Amino acid sequence: MLKKEQNELVTRTSKGTAMGELFRRYWLPALLSEELPEPDCAPVRLQLLGERLITFRDSSGTLGAIDEFCAHRGVSLWFGRNEEGGIRCPYHGWKYDTQGRCIDIPSEPADSKLCDRVKLSAYPLIERGGVIWIYMGEPEHQPALPEWEFATVPADQSFMTKRLQECNWLQALEGGIDSSHVSFLHSGGLKHDPLFKGSKGNEYNLGDLRPHFEVAETDGGLLIGARRKAEPGSVYWRITPWVMPNFMMVPPRADHPVHGHFWVPIDDENCWAWSFDYHPTRALKESEVQAMKDGAGIHCKYVPGTYIPLANKSNDYLMDRARQKSGELYSGVESIAIQDSSLQESMGAIQDRTKETLTSTDRGIVQARRRLIAAATALAESGTPPPGMEAALQHIRSVALVSPEAAPFPAVAEEALQSAPGKPHATV
Amino acid sequence: MLKKEQNELVTRTSKGTAMGELFRRYWLPALLSEELPEPDCAPVRLQLLGERLITFRDSSGTLGAIDEFCAHRGVSLWFGRNEEGGIRCPYHGWKYDTQGRCIDIPSEPADSKLCDRVKLSAYPLIERGGVIWIYMGEPEHQPALPEWEFATVPADQSFMTKRLQECNWLQALEGGIDSSHVSFLHSGGLKHDPLFKGSKGNEYNLGDLRPHFEVAETDGGLLIGARRKAEPGSVYWRITPWVMPNFMMVPPRADHPVHGHFWVPIDDENCWAWSFDYHPTRALKESEVQAMKDGAGIHCKYVPGTYIPLANKSNDYLMDRARQKSGELYSGVESIAIQDSSLQESMGAIQDRTKETLTSTDRGIVQARRRLIAAATALAESGTPPPGMEAALQHIRSVALVSPEAAPFPAVAEEALQSAPGKPHATV
Amino acid sequence: MLKKEQNELVTRTSKGTAMGELFRRYWLPALLSEELPEPDCAPVRLQLLGERLITFRDSSGTLGAIDEFCAHRGVSLWFGRNEEGGIRCPYHGWKYDTQGRCIDIPSEPADSKLCDRVKLSAYPLIERGGVIWIYMGEPEHQPALPEWEFATVPADQSFMTKRLQECNWLQALEGGIDSSHVSFLHSGGLKHDPLFKGSKGNEYNLGDLRPHFEVAETDGGLLIGARRKAEPGSVYWRITPWVMPNFMMVPPRADHPVHGHFWVPIDDENCWAWSFDYHPTRALKESEVQAMKDGAGIHCKYVPGTYIPLANKSNDYLMDRARQKSGELYSGVESIAIQDSSLQESMGAIQDRTKETLTSTDRGIVQARRRLIAAATALAESGTPPPGMEAALQHIRSVALVSPEAAPFPAVAEEALQSAPGKPHATV
Repeated sequence: MLKKEQNELVTRTSKGTAMGELFRRYWLPALLSEELPEPDCAPVRLQLLGERLITFRDSSGTLGAIDEFCAHRGVSLWFGRNEEGGIRCPYHGWKYDTQGRCIDIPSEPADSKLCDRVKLSAYPLIERGGVIWIYMGEPEHQPALPEWEFATVPADQSFMTKRLQECNWLQALEGGIDSSHVSFLHSGGLKHDPLFKGSKGNEYNLGDLRPHFEVAETDGGLLIGARRKAEPGSVYWRITPWVMPNFMMVPPRADHPVHGHFWVPIDDENCWAWSFDYHPTRALKESEVQAMKDGAGIHCKYVPGTYIPLANKSNDYLMDRARQKSGELYSGVESIAIQDSSLQESMGAIQDRTKETLTSTDRGIVQARRRLIAAATALAESGTPPPGMEAALQHIRSVALVSPEAAPFPAVAEEALQSAPGKPHATV
Repeated sequence: MLKKEQNELVTRTSKGTAMGELFRRYWLPALLSEELPEPDCAPVRLQLLGERLITFRDSSGTLGAIDEFCAHRGVSLWFGRNEEGGIRCPYHGWKYDTQGRCIDIPSEPADSKLCDRVKLSAYPLIERGGVIWIYMGEPEHQPALPEWEFATVPADQSFMTKRLQECNWLQALEGGIDSSHVSFLHSGGLKHDPLFKGSKGNEYNLGDLRPHFEVAETDGGLLIGARRKAEPGSVYWRITPWVMPNFMMVPPRADHPVHGHFWVPIDDENCWAWSFDYHPTRALKESEVQAMKDGAGIHCKYVPGTYIPLANKSNDYLMDRARQKSGELYSGVESIAIQDSSLQESMGAIQDRTKETLTSTDRGIVQARRRLIAAATALAESGTPPPGMEAALQHIRSVALVSPEAAPFPAVAEEALQSAPGKPHATV
Repeated sequence: MLKKEQNELVTRTSKGTAMGELFRRYWLPALLSEELPEPDCAPVRLQLLGERLITFRDSSGTLGAIDEFCAHRGVSLWFGRNEEGGIRCPYHGWKYDTQGRCIDIPSEPADSKLCDRVKLSAYPLIERGGVIWIYMGEPEHQPALPEWEFATVPADQSFMTKRLQECNWLQALEGGIDSSHVSFLHSGGLKHDPLFKGSKGNEYNLGDLRPHFEVAETDGGLLIGARRKAEPGSVYWRITPWVMPNFMMVPPRADHPVHGHFWVPIDDENCWAWSFDYHPTRALKESEVQAMKDGAGIHCKYVPGTYIPLANKSNDYLMDRARQKSGELYSGVESIAIQDSSLQESMGAIQDRTKETLTSTDRGIVQARRRLIAAATALAESGTPPPGMEAALQHIRSVALVSPEAAPFPAVAEEALQSAPGKPHATV
């Protein structure tokens, strides 16, 4: 349970807010590479952290994210012509490069200096792992480039999607680091989903509905361990790393690709749920990729031509009461991703955390909120850089393993939690 | 004409408002029985008086109306699984019974006492006459169960529908107790509607456009009499009872079923218009029920799968200017129910009663407002229980009769106004 | 660039605002004649300057614009029956004439005087040039009837349309008097549009992207001249007259009809863009009228049954990136009208003029704002009647001509700027 002012602090991310400034210290997933597929392709609107930007790939392939609106008279550059090294406003032909610099005002006299004085704000974009990343903070604080394993393995080992989620980013994150709901909400998925099923771990998961939770602090965030009964004398650990502010990985199952999420605020009442799947040691199978494209695993089906889930708030997530009743679909909502979004969105645009009843299984959520509030406050009050920006902290993996009952957490997985090229992941 | 603060007082019904507390002293129609047709059926969202509830029928058939949101982390229980004696949140499996008590938290240790401390607010529901009724007030003030005649006659003598109306409840009620508009707005219905036509009274109705109105106070509300010329020396009385706060009955016509309404606030800008038809001494004919289902009488056609009228604000009520012009449809809008809702909704979400010009035919409206304001104020200021809660006051009927000119109102109908099992109604 | 309070003053037009009172001193285009085609036709809702009215043509053909809501209980008279000399509210039959006077309350006793005391506010309408004009100010300030040339030439020489624009009126006007965007945004139109192409002036337009701008004050507004290079020793002038507050004319091209606009505020975030085409000396050709109906020139295609452009904000103006890329359609948006509306709407509902970078080509915009602010302030502070109301000031034309380099502005076009019946227009 949070006080009202704590809930405000931890959920709001527009410019000048404490949490907004914290987010502006990290590289954030901004677009899929497929959205800006080639030089001089169509520009794409991007709203993140409440700011409206236009993004484009110029003639040389350089990426740019600049103010959406022309400095002249405020026209949206979404209507712009992406041509010969910049984007040109179609109203009077003012042209900008990827740094936001004005490079042409064709109606000005040849000796005019106006162009040199015009500059739109701009943020750096980089591309890695099929994702275009943005850094929206001050240049002097720009951190090292992202080195998450999913983004650094060979391209054929990794697959990424994004979907619109119509609620604040934090309740989406809280769902992601809450391992305890899997045995309920996603119980069907454990049995039937082609990217989940067939793991010995799933049996432990469904066989012990009262997992013991342990949470350990790391330099970058938390390790959230859920311990369940396995064979006599042994236990099944699922360990979820969370790295500040919005990255987490789901513990693996069998030889399936391992997956995880980012949640990136669009504004305070909407976010992008990013979902990746990768295998650390082999290419993804064609059948796996096809399943992901078909909405299996943590991915979803879309309204054609958009990143809006086909099953969404406006259609009650295509609730199927008959399959809910029969138990075939525990919640009546199809797909793991939509099971999550449907419930998270039902909490309201911003969950009122002054009304809730947390319990021992919510320990990860409680500590993540505490870390976020502490880091945002320290940054706001004394300029303390927030944790989790070092690339080394990104060499992390989720873990699923069976160990002797007595093995202590998190030492039980110390080695397995570190990623390294070609190193197999610890999975059950 | 009301002062601004009076209009606020009499129209707003959320928790803590004067009129809201008054409404919370009565049994109100909440759902049709058909909406919760059987044990363990799908739960149904219910918003009334600004409060959001989830309603369900448990395995034993017991009805429940509890807070919509799970006490744990705020998920809407609309997504819940209605199973084995309670509704279970699909997120982490917390389960509630019809009283709002938490009866299972499967992730808790066996000896946990958390469950005993968790309770969602809950309101009693009862079922009578095809309607599920709710009482949203303090338990110590719960009144006797509803005994309206339509709800206590044998089931085959009664038929009930509801429809969404996109405006404040009071302007809908005011339309209902305003007998004078019938000769204009519904003039076509008097001639052609299968549930209205063929009454001698209709001829009086259409033949005298300047009725004389009398209003008498009763313990529970008002009797609103409209006197029109009949044969020489005699007069035609139509007497509409209004019982506080939101019940009224339309005077009968010939041997048709007699009908009436409740208007129940959803929030301050929307209400449910409830519409019943019953015959006190015989089963409804198949043709009558079919006509009602087809939208005749005071019922309507729906957007399939909803209780939203097919002809509604978003489509200009399917206005037919050609039939309006020809006079075939006086207002150009089909169906008596939609003729009412179209005009009432056109007044705005909450009619601005500081701008109006009331006249003698509005006497019923004026007195009803006065009674409502007085009762709400007395309840708020000194805890005086509002009128109309006693079941005996519900043994009331509307009346249509022809009497000698000199017969005084309301004595002219004293006997006919009382309902009694098997007693024929006074109709012309 | 404006200060925040200046931007508020110049954009807001509801009753009681400075600019709203200024607008209420002029005859404004309200409806197309085709919207009220015949006596006793269907009434039409009209919202202008934030006020909601109902307009109708009575049995004798007289036009009326009265309060939308019945004085009795507030029902919208859009539902009214237009019959025998007035519009009758279908609720209780109250009837109003075109002056807003109540002329019948059928439920009142024969000797009632109520009707005489009931009056809805009403504004005069007149019809001229296929347009129904409204005057929404005090009767004592009513100006002479509109004498714009397009409205006074024979009917077969003139054609008028209107379309909804989803933004404040001022940014639409500013686009209209901004001659410099034509060479960019509408460059395709100059080459291909049947109502624009084939003019020698277009070659000058496209050949000189750095026009020299001059602005001259007139009694009624501004003359905005754009001078471009023509043959050696001569220059090409395009002169756009703006008459306060919202009239302008585009300079002509070859023997095409000449055109212009009004922008009339619906409310502060929407306006009607009125677009006329006329020829001062000949009837429009069938092919020209057909082209206008098909959306060529400054007209557009519609959502059937409405005055909403088919290409609008909700569908991203049917942006065609392939044709934008190929250069076939400079902005990717088809039709000159929609090229304008798409960019103007993209500035936001009300452009934030505290953030812009104006340049020499924006001189007309700067001076128009200054005139508007000065006139609205003078009217508000000392009752000074605003300029431009005299009919004589409406005898104005736009001009396109080639002159010797040295000819001074605006003297170069003094004669050509005056309209007169049968006088050919100055065009290149």
